[in-house]
Formats: sequence, structure tokens, C-alpha cells
Amino acid sequence: MTKPAPIDLRSDTVTRPDDSMYAAMSAAQVGDDVLDHDPTMRALEDEVARLLGTAAALWVPTGTQGNLIALALHLRRGDRFLAPRGAHVLTHELGSAAWLAGGMPDPLEWSAGPGRPTPDVIRASADGGARYDALRTTLLCLENTHNEAGGAVVPPHEHAQLAAAARDGGLAVHLDGARLWNASVALGVPPAALTVGVDSAQVCLSKGLGAPVGSVLAGDRDFIAEARRMRKALGGGVRQGGVLAAAGLIALKRIDQLAEDHAHAARLATGLAGLGFDVTTPQTNIVLAAVPDVRLSLARMRALGVLAVPMAGKIRFVTHRDVTEADVDEALRRIGEDQGGQR
Amino acid sequence: MTKPAPIDLRSDTVTRPDDSMYAAMSAAQVGDDVLDHDPTMRALEDEVARLLGTAAALWVPTGTQGNLIALALHLRRGDRFLAPRGAHVLTHELGSAAWLAGGMPDPLEWSAGPGRPTPDVIRASADGGARYDALRTTLLCLENTHNEAGGAVVPPHEHAQLAAAARDGGLAVHLDGARLWNASVALGVPPAALTVGVDSAQVCLSKGLGAPVGSVLAGDRDFIAEARRMRKALGGGVRQGGVLAAAGLIALKRIDQLAEDHAHAARLATGLAGLGFDVTTPQTNIVLAAVPDVRLSLARMRALGVLAVPMAGKIRFVTHRDVTEADVDEALRRIGEDQGGQR
Amino acid sequence: MTKPAPIDLRSDTVTRPDDSMYAAMSAAQVGDDVLDHDPTMRALEDEVARLLGTAAALWVPTGTQGNLIALALHLRRGDRFLAPRGAHVLTHELGSAAWLAGGMPDPLEWSAGPGRPTPDVIRASADGGARYDALRTTLLCLENTHNEAGGAVVPPHEHAQLAAAARDGGLAVHLDGARLWNASVALGVPPAALTVGVDSAQVCLSKGLGAPVGSVLAGDRDFIAEARRMRKALGGGVRQGGVLAAAGLIALKRIDQLAEDHAHAARLATGLAGLGFDVTTPQTNIVLAAVPDVRLSLARMRALGVLAVPMAGKIRFVTHRDVTEADVDEALRRIGEDQGGQR
Amino acid sequence: MTKPAPIDLRSDTVTRPDDSMYAAMSAAQVGDDVLDHDPTMRALEDEVARLLGTAAALWVPTGTQGNLIALALHLRRGDRFLAPRGAHVLTHELGSAAWLAGGMPDPLEWSAGPGRPTPDVIRASADGGARYDALRTTLLCLENTHNEAGGAVVPPHEHAQLAAAARDGGLAVHLDGARLWNASVALGVPPAALTVGVDSAQVCLSKGLGAPVGSVLAGDRDFIAEARRMRKALGGGVRQGGVLAAAGLIALKRIDQLAEDHAHAARLATGLAGLGFDVTTPQTNIVLAAVPDVRLSLARMRALGVLAVPMAGKIRFVTHRDVTEADVDEALRRIGEDQGGQR
Repeated sequence: MTKPAPIDLRSDTVTRPDDSMYAAMSAAQVGDDVLDHDPTMRALEDEVARLLGTAAALWVPTGTQGNLIALALHLRRGDRFLAPRGAHVLTHELGSAAWLAGGMPDPLEWSAGPGRPTPDVIRASADGGARYDALRTTLLCLENTHNEAGGAVVPPHEHAQLAAAARDGGLAVHLDGARLWNASVALGVPPAALTVGVDSAQVCLSKGLGAPVGSVLAGDRDFIAEARRMRKALGGGVRQGGVLAAAGLIALKRIDQLAEDHAHAARLATGLAGLGFDVTTPQTNIVLAAVPDVRLSLARMRALGVLAVPMAGKIRFVTHRDVTEADVDEALRRIGEDQGGQR
Repeated sequence: MTKPAPIDLRSDTVTRPDDSMYAAMSAAQVGDDVLDHDPTMRALEDEVARLLGTAAALWVPTGTQGNLIALALHLRRGDRFLAPRGAHVLTHELGSAAWLAGGMPDPLEWSAGPGRPTPDVIRASADGGARYDALRTTLLCLENTHNEAGGAVVPPHEHAQLAAAARDGGLAVHLDGARLWNASVALGVPPAALTVGVDSAQVCLSKGLGAPVGSVLAGDRDFIAEARRMRKALGGGVRQGGVLAAAGLIALKRIDQLAEDHAHAARLATGLAGLGFDVTTPQTNIVLAAVPDVRLSLARMRALGVLAVPMAGKIRFVTHRDVTEADVDEALRRIGEDQGGQR
Repeated sequence: MTKPAPIDLRSDTVTRPDDSMYAAMSAAQVGDDVLDHDPTMRALEDEVARLLGTAAALWVPTGTQGNLIALALHLRRGDRFLAPRGAHVLTHELGSAAWLAGGMPDPLEWSAGPGRPTPDVIRASADGGARYDALRTTLLCLENTHNEAGGAVVPPHEHAQLAAAARDGGLAVHLDGARLWNASVALGVPPAALTVGVDSAQVCLSKGLGAPVGSVLAGDRDFIAEARRMRKALGGGVRQGGVLAAAGLIALKRIDQLAEDHAHAARLATGLAGLGFDVTTPQTNIVLAAVPDVRLSLARMRALGVLAVPMAGKIRFVTHRDVTEADVDEALRRIGEDQGGQR
Repeated sequence: MTKPAPIDLRSDTVTRPDDSMYAAMSAAQVGDDVLDHDPTMRALEDEVARLLGTAAALWVPTGTQGNLIALALHLRRGDRFLAPRGAHVLTHELGSAAWLAGGMPDPLEWSAGPGRPTPDVIRASADGGARYDALRTTLLCLENTHNEAGGAVVPPHEHAQLAAAARDGGLAVHLDGARLWNASVALGVPPAALTVGVDSAQVCLSKGLGAPVGSVLAGDRDFIAEARRMRKALGGGVRQGGVLAAAGLIALKRIDQLAEDHAHAARLATGLAGLGFDVTTPQTNIVLAAVPDVRLSLARMRALGVLAVPMAGKIRFVTHRDVTEADVDEALRRIGEDQGGQR
């Protein structure tokens, strides 16, 4: 008997380009984006800037680099920055916020809801730079949706209050919007409604939407000019990037389709709860399930052909465009069999 | 009417050398401690190593530099390190742990008592470096006494358990012992009982003991050899440092006298409580008092000739060898008058 | 009258993918190269490792990132590294060798020929780390072909002597082989003959060969494992990179075709000399021409439809697969007309 | 037979405080220079600012830290800085200019004389930051006297031309004046004549003048305010530093006495030449002698009781206030005996 094909719920980063993307990649006009500008890159950057409501934007190979560039430009050496506990820049970027960007992180508790602090906490944290020998706090880094909070969204009015509190305290604001499209779709608001008051934002093209490679960093013109320089220093300035940007432009047209992933996540969560799992109700495409032994559960699921990853002491499942409703049901069936076998 | 001399309770760093120290400084044998070794420096370093039970030690101009060197040597770029929330390396060293030492801090809650986590938290935090793209956690940084915790002590058995938990998780341990002498005196144990299981420790000569300048970093021989190199890079390697070391050697003979500061702190706390202040019971020479408006209270005390500083949202008073019992009583009297005037 | 299409001799990085590449990109098997491994990426990395004679290899988005990762892994903070004056890591990577990799560069004169020092200079420079407070010299960074030296090649026996001298002095060796394929073709030796004695080497897929994006860093297994981690920190670890690797695999089959670019460069140099330019005889695909006013000359050529760039006080022309013999002749004709007009 | 006391010509840093200094150290008014300001420190800083013609100044524990702070403040990450080949910041500060200050050094040849380039070289080197991806050159670092150039002085008019060339090219200027007092005395001009056009300057108190510890960094008020912050981060902000500053104030009154050291150096050079050494004529207090085998010669001299150090492939002798004319003659006698024995 052959082993069944695994159902890959590890991340929405596993989505693959489809034929329409390959056709666009092959047909794209390209140029040398280091020497001057690749025209398809430029079109992609303009489109993201338009969607986010910023003056300019810059393609970067990964969201990690987009965040790193933003932090490096916002922070002077040793500046303290605030971010919700568990933020990607704190826990999943190998400490580059500290050793490369030079920032001293201060993780904020989720006092206002999953993945976000209250404006008051930001105001209180911003205080204190009066003395010459005190830490300077200069940046608030938000994340929407917040990955470790199970894809929780920050609604527009709360986002705006947080950004305003930062502004009041003299802080710049960077938004890690690796899954901002998901937040936009879940909330039914345009992406630009979620970038109000930010100085920079990073969005991803290869999560859930099928583009193979790339993120985009957005901000004002001066910021993006410096970001382009920093991208070069970090080794992120590529040549005929138009082949990737062409896929990115198609990805941007599919944002609405993320609603299906959200429906699948809800179905998965309901099914898991029915199997006795301790599951949070998903707001977007991420389902976190608490289990007694994460490593063991992951190994047993893998053996049954269901792939997931550990996160924040739980198991994380992520739905995406290469997972159908039938796949979700099949995954539940496989997990259910194992649970049954356990008893 | 002349203004009364202020009673300086801002910090035990304000203590001044006395005549016996000046005499020792003038009589000290000195050499060029960069080209080779200043003999009095060497004597001081040997004495601190003996007191802390380490193989070697190195004079540094400040505790901040001692901590920075230790972190820079223990951490590879981007490594995560653990420290109790509010630790000096997190909040009072201008972010140098991040931008200079390259470390990604993770503040630990005080789950076991003021200024310290439980061993379980350390064990849990040490986990996770399995994947190539996960943060590596490699260092635990303790602080005893813990400044922002109001000079709270970590007793030997708790210290040993924390160090053992770190060791089990593959972490090195650095002890910020800027006030380790106070902990030793308060607990009635030798300093070496509080360095069990550490890889490096930093102690201060200019807090409470009267030496004008200097701290000492202790560790094994290889560590101290590298530390000497790092000290040179940071600009902390001085020439005829024996003039300072001579004062440090006298300071080391006075450690027992810190008990008086502790008695004075207890007297001050009792007095403040009697005046209606919300005061923690001091374990050493630091008194934290909660007030509705820190800035206002500090300003009013200053006007009355009582100097203190803000810390962690409260007012911090520190007793030291240049403050007598009479000074404490006078400070209480001045504060009390103001309180009276307020009503 | 319409303006003629410009002949782009700015760099061999301007080459574009052709249909066979697009077909391969569309057909490539892809996976998530951050979560685990993209199979086409893996095939590309294996092939480069085979060509260079190393145990392992890692795709990186740019040669700049490949060099940066290598330097960051070879150098401890503040270590001195040697590189021929004008090396790409010194002059064209925005100082990342210093601020990111932490290295203190020491540019070596070209005492043995264009772009390279003598082994004796390396031996002499490697000396000196005896004292605790002396700079440690730990790396030699070579470049073959050497860009600012006009694409000059370092022959195998000279390369081996330089690497051996470094080894004798306790230095690691990194080879910036952004144009190593050109050196290999020009010298008629396999690429692995030019990596003898190196600890790491970086080669480029998007120079002259048509692949749109990517370079590869090669070394032993431990080095590459750490490099993968560092790539993640710098934001260079991409997802379905197989779409790019597929183009890279085709590029690797075309290395021999670089001989045509070399013939075109020779033809261009001869033609320029005939027009009175002061031109070095090219060894590969780069032609440097000395002119009285670089900025002016470049502007006039651009107006005539011939694109080049300034380099090291001269004008640099680079031939590549998107420039034919006819293009070279046409470029010479356009430049010649202008020269004529000048008299 | 007892071994004769060694004559220590390794460095002018070996000078020791005398009784007048000890008296001043003991009598000095001191305060906590981290919490606010030590009054004697303040007096010293004011006096150095006055001597150098700057608005403000800051005590630092070493010249290395003074240089490091200046570079860190003048340079953004990755900025290129120019310095004469062999400058202390390039070769004797453990690479901190790169890994701590983030600068990419470009060593300039001594085209205008020992230890200094021509203004034209600076103008040419300052050019080139036009493109977004080009190194930015933002600082010229001068050294007067220049240590590796054998204590060579840069006269006022040449200094002014170099500073003006830097200014024309948009560069800031930092002066490493570790031995600026020597240059001032040798040239017969006030120190401020040698700081014309600089943005910052560092001078040393423990070279030749007898103060045990300390240097001073000078600049405008904003620069010094930021420098104080950076000093704190590097661990160079000390408490009752007045004990050291008091010695520094006496040192400043002795600057004229450096003329004796210069006379002794001339006497030593003449003597060495008479013994057949290949010696440069000293301009200040440093004598460089070329010998066939530096290590061997240093060892033999050490055996005879004459201490010197290797520098730039030669032997360096430095005269200072603890070496008398008789000491110089005795050193020559000892070396001469050995030379005789050799024949």
C-alpha cells in the first residue's frame, strides 16, 4: 500500500505558482534592477504602494529582510523598540533586530487582545528618554495579522489608536504585514485602512497567494531611497527580478481569494474541536491547537500524512490556496483515526 | 537663611574616597597596565578572583563595561539571552547588549520573587534551538542584588538552582554583581557562595565602599584573556591604573561595613512608612517608595534637600557610607515637614 | 529619425533569460526552501559544489550576500582581512564587510600583477597577532577575475601560491568568484582548478549567462550549514526558489559560451585602440579605457546609444551574451563618429 | 652581580605620577560624574576645550575610546573613512573602527610626507557617492603627531589644507591628537593652531606628562552631548573621576616640558646613528630604527636593560619625562657594548 500524499498545513508559504503565473513570468519585461530599474519590478512596487497608500515601495527577497531594513533605518544604535510579545521580528528572525539593526527590543504583553497591547502601555513605554543615559525608545513595531497569536487581526480603529499613541510618544511605527492581506480580507476593509499612521509596512507575496519569492517594503520616498541602499548592503538587490515581480502582480489580484483559506481554517478548527482538541477560533487562516506533547503529536500527524509545525507551545496549522476543503476533511479524518486508535 | 546641605540618597555610587584611600593611592606601585601589568591592578584582580572563587579577574572602568564585555564574549551574533525583567543590562546600559554585544534579550518575569524567575522558566526558555532558523538561546544573565527589584537578594540555594537550570539548557551564566557585596552581607554568606555555577561575574568597587572608579570582571583564565582584549577594543584598558586599584583594595576590606547601610535603609523605610509612604521592606541598601507623581515628589524632596532618583515608576533611595543614621533621620524630618505642609 | 536602440555594455548582469530558461523555470519542481529544501535549488547547489570541488553549496540572492555571509562566518569581530585593492568586497558592497561582518579591511597593492598581491606580501601581512592587543588577521579574500583590474585572471599556480601563503599564515581564504567562470574559460582550466585551497567561494549565475537572479556560496558542510542560518538572518532565504534555480542550472551548461564574450571584448579593445583610446588588452570580457574626462565621455556615448559605466577612474565596457559581434562593431562605429566629430 | 635597572623606552605611556600629582589627586573636589558632573572633571574638560579652541570636551578613559566615540558619531553604518596608512585607528585599536563604529576604512598613502596624504588625494577620495549603491565617504581621520611615521608632525598650514580639502568634499574631520601636545611644542604653535577645521579631536593626558589615566575628546556642544551618551554605552563613564582629572590638570601645565623629551630623542637618534643604526631623524619624541631582525634586536636589548617595542617593521624608542639625558646615554652605552660584541 502506498503512503498517501501528505497534506501540508505547515505554512501558507508552501503555495506554488500556477500556469498563469508561469506565463506571466515568461512574458514579463525585465531589466537590471540594480543598475537602474526593472520595469515589472517597478510596476509591482507602484501597485503595492497604491494598495497601502504610501508614496513608494521596494521589492525585497523576504519579509525578514523587509523588516530588517525598516528596523535598521528607524533605529539608531541601541534604541529601544516596542513589539508585541511573540512578534516575528522578536522570535523568528534570528536576532537580526538586535545585532544587525542595533535595536533593543522590549516585548509588550497582549493587554488589549491577542497579539496587541493597549495604547496606554505604548504611552507609558515611550516615556523615559529624558536623561542622557537613559534608553531612547523610538519605534513601535506592530504585526497584523499576528502569527503567534494565531493569525489574530487588529481592527482599523485599534490599529489607529496604537499608531496614534506611538506618534504621541515620539515613536515611528513599522507594520509587519506579512499577512496584512489576510487581515484586510477578514475585516472587510482595504489594506490601506490598516496602514494608517505607519511610517513603513512590509507585505508578503509568497504567503497564500502563490508567488514563489518576494515581499514589498512600503514607505515615503526618502525612506524607500535609503531602503534601496540598505537592501544592496544586505545582498537583496537582484537583477532581472521582473520574473518574480510578474508573479507578484498576479498574486495581488488574488487577495480576495484568501477568504477561502479563512473558511477552511474555520472548518479545520471546528473539526479539531470535535476531535477533542483545545483550539482557538481562527480569525484568519491559522489554527493553533494545544496538545499535551507538541513534539509527539507532530510526529504522529506526520506519520499519518498531516504536516504542521510547533508554535508558541502549541501546534500551528495554516490553510492556503493549495489546500482544498476536501484536503481539510481528509486531514481531519486522518487525525481522527489516530485519536481513535489512541483510546 | 542658608539652604541646608542636601542629603544625597540618589545612589551608593556617590561615595567618596577618604584619607586612607588617598594615602594608598599615593603610595601604590604602578606600571603600564596596557603594555604589561600594573602590579597594584594585578593584586586587586587576584584578590577579587579569590573572593569570587574564580581563576582570574580583570579590572574594568565601569560595571557597564564589565557586563558588556561578558555579553560580547558569551554571545554570538543574534543569540538570545535571558535576564530578569528590569535587569541593568536590559534597561540601564543604552542598549549595548544588543548593538554592541549582538544579543537578543528576552526579559523574564519575576515568577520566583523580586528580580528572579523560577528555574522552570529558564528550562522552558532554553528550549527551541533545534531548527536551523530558530533563535539560539545561549546565556542567562542574573543580577544579585537586583536593582529595580529594590535591592532584593537571591539566596544561595535559589541562585544555584537557577544556574543549574541554565547549565541543563546549555546556557552560560553571567552574574551582574554590581551589588553582590550587599547580597553577601545581607545573607551572611561569602561572596563565592553566590557565584556557584557562573561563567563570569562582575562586581563593583565604587558602590558604597568609597573607591572612586572601577569594577572587576571575573571568570576563568581563557575568558579573562579574551576579556582583556575586548576591554582594549572598547577603550577600557588604562595605564597606571594602580592609583585606582589601591583604592579598590581598601574598598574590599570594608565589605562588612555595608551592614550599616542596610540598617540605615531599614530605618529609612520604617520612617517613610510612618509618614504614609507605600514602601517595600528593604533587604539591603535600597528603598523603593511608590508615590502618585514621581516627578513631582522628586522635585519637592530636592527643594527640601533630599536627593533621590526615579526607578521603575517609583522613587529610589539608596543608603551608603557617606550617609549616617543622623542623615537618615534628618532626611525623614525634611520629608515629614513637607508632608505636613501638604495637608 | 528614431533614436537607435542602445548597446548595453554596462555590465554582464544585464543578460536576460531566454525561452529555454523560461521553459525550465515553468517546469521546475519547487518546494519551500526555508521550511525544508526546494528540490531544484538542491540540484543547483549540488551541481555548483561539484563544479567547484566543495562538499556543499548554498544559493543566495546576490553575490554581495554570498560574500557578506562568508566574511561574517570567517571573521570574528574586529578581525583584519586582506583583499587586493579595489576588490568588490572593499569598494562595491557599501561597507558591509565592516559594519555587518565586523571585519577591518587591509587593501593589498597589486604587486604580482593586475588585481593580485604576491605571496610574500600575504605572509608579511599575516604576521603580527602575537600580542593580546594586536589586530588579528584571519582571512584572505581573493577575486578572480578581478573586476577593477579589468577582468584580469589569476592563473591556477599563482592562485595556489596565494592560498598556500594564507594557509601558512593561519588565514582562511574566501574567493569572490563572481566571474570565476570567465577565468576558467579564459585559462582553459576547470573551475575547481581555481578553488584549490579556499575555504569558501562565491559564484554568480546572473553575470553573462542569462539567469535572472542568484549566486551560489560553496564550502564544506559545516560552513554551509552556518551560512544557511546567516542567509536567513540577512533575509536571503527564499521559498519556491526553484523557479530561479532552474534558470541557474541552464546557465551552468553555458559556461563555455563565455569564450564568445571574450572574443568580443578583444575585438572591442582593438577597435577602441584604433580610435585612439588608451585601452588595456582584455583577458576576459571587460575592457577598461582611460579617458581625460570619464563623466563627459560616458554622457556622450550614452547620447550615441552606447552604454558603459565609470570604474576606477576609467570607462568600463563589459561584453555578454546579449551583445553580438555586430553590436560591438556598431558600438565602435557610433563612438568613432563622435571621435571624428570632435576633431 | 645585580642586573641593572632597565631603561624603559617602550612608550611615553609609562610615565608615572609624581608627588605634586598625588597631592592634587588627594585634594581634588569630586562628584559622581555619571549622575551629574564631577567638578574637577568639569574643570579639566573646560581647560582642554580652551586649549583646543572647541566649545566643549569630555574626559574618556583612553584615547582608543575617544577615537571610537568620535568615529561612531561621525560615521553612519558602512560609511567609508579616510586615514593615513598606519594610523592608530587603523592598526592599533583592534578593528573597533569597523565592528563598533561601523566604518569602512580606506588607508591613504603618505604622499605629502611621513604620516600624511596630499589634499588632492583627499579630494579625489571624497568623490564617488553619487550613485545609491556607492560607498559614502564621510570622514577624514588625521593623526598628529603620527605614531607609525616616527612621531612626524603635520605643520599648521598643511593641516589646514587637509581639513579644507575634506570640507570641500563634504567630509567631517577627526583629529587623533594622542600626541598633539608634542606636535604643538615641536612646531612652536599653540595646540589650537593644529585643530583648525576639525569637528572633533582627541588628546591624551597619560603620554609623557605623568597623568596615570585619561584622554579628552573635544568638539562642539551637540557632539559632546552625544559623546557622553556613547561613552556611557561603552562603559567609559566613571564616578569620582576627579581624582584622575586633578592629575590631568597638572599634566596640562607641563606641556612645554615635552621639549626635553624631544631633545633626548634627538640625542638618542644621533647616538644610534653613530652606532651604525639606520635611524630617521626624530621630529618629536619617537625614534624609529631599522634593523635586520626586529625580534632578535629587541630581545638582545632587553637582555641589556634597554626596553623598546616593534613598530611598522622597525624598532621604536620613545623618550618621556621619566627618562633623563643620563638614561639616554646609558642606553646608548649598553646598546653599543652589544654592537661591539657582535663584531
